[in-house]
Amino acid sequence: MALSGEYDNSNIFAKILGGEIPCAKVYEDEAVLAFMDVFPQSKGHTLVIPKSASRNLFDTDEDTLGPLMLAVQKIGEAIIKAMSPCGVVITQFNGAPAGQTVFHLHFHIIPRYEGRELSDHGAAEMASAETLAAQARLIAAHL
Amino acid sequence: MALSGEYDNSNIFAKILGGEIPCAKVYEDEAVLAFMDVFPQSKGHTLVIPKSASRNLFDTDEDTLGPLMLAVQKIGEAIIKAMSPCGVVITQFNGAPAGQTVFHLHFHIIPRYEGRELSDHGAAEMASAETLAAQARLIAAHL
Repeated sequence: MALSGEYDNSNIFAKILGGEIPCAKVYEDEAVLAFMDVFPQSKGHTLVIPKSASRNLFDTDEDTLGPLMLAVQKIGEAIIKAMSPCGVVITQFNGAPAGQTVFHLHFHIIPRYEGRELSDHGAAEMASAETLAAQARLIAAHL
Repeated sequence: MALSGEYDNSNIFAKILGGEIPCAKVYEDEAVLAFMDVFPQSKGHTLVIPKSASRNLFDTDEDTLGPLMLAVQKIGEAIIKAMSPCGVVITQFNGAPAGQTVFHLHFHIIPRYEGRELSDHGAAEMASAETLAAQARLIAAHL
């Protein structure tokens, strides 16, 4: 998939936004949705996406990007309080060669824990819905 | 280094901002500075930092974060035009266990090229000042 192109409404995050597919929701407002990554690279790995249709960072506008980043910050802070990681990695992939697998703009918030390596992006094991729901509740309690 | 703590004025990006250490500058305005990473993980690897003193994403404010992200977007677009990568990775590390090595908030813009792996963060070879200056000029020409 090229960096530029049409937004594809059938991507999995569009289906989550449309309520067709469930998610372990952490946070939602008029502009943003945050939910647990089903293939977590570490405990607490959360995705933050805009509600507006953007493929990536380079086809989104100022009115989307500002609130999105404030949500990344706010949810990251809640993850720190909920999970007590030693560090937090923020990643955002644009284009398949860069590791983007879902073509709706998303920021990864990935907690790091001392002495524990991350699972590879795209190679992590799927987490159970129960585990993710419990983590989402824990993080949301700190928002 | 913990996620929270005092900002240390002697960090290398503070010295770049203060003009004590040179950089291959891509862009500067009243709020933001962008320059080439001296240990590039790929050709065109650029750093975007706020001028205000923030250790990481979690001790910065809305007035800093908004302009910073718009600069990341704008400079990323210029890198795409200048370098024609197949993808672009955005990363931002908070805390030493997460890979943060300089304790002034910075976003990495890392172009990806088909069939070429990234050098590891923290293990890439130092690029020459001439190479970085030429790349900075090339990117700046597209801003």
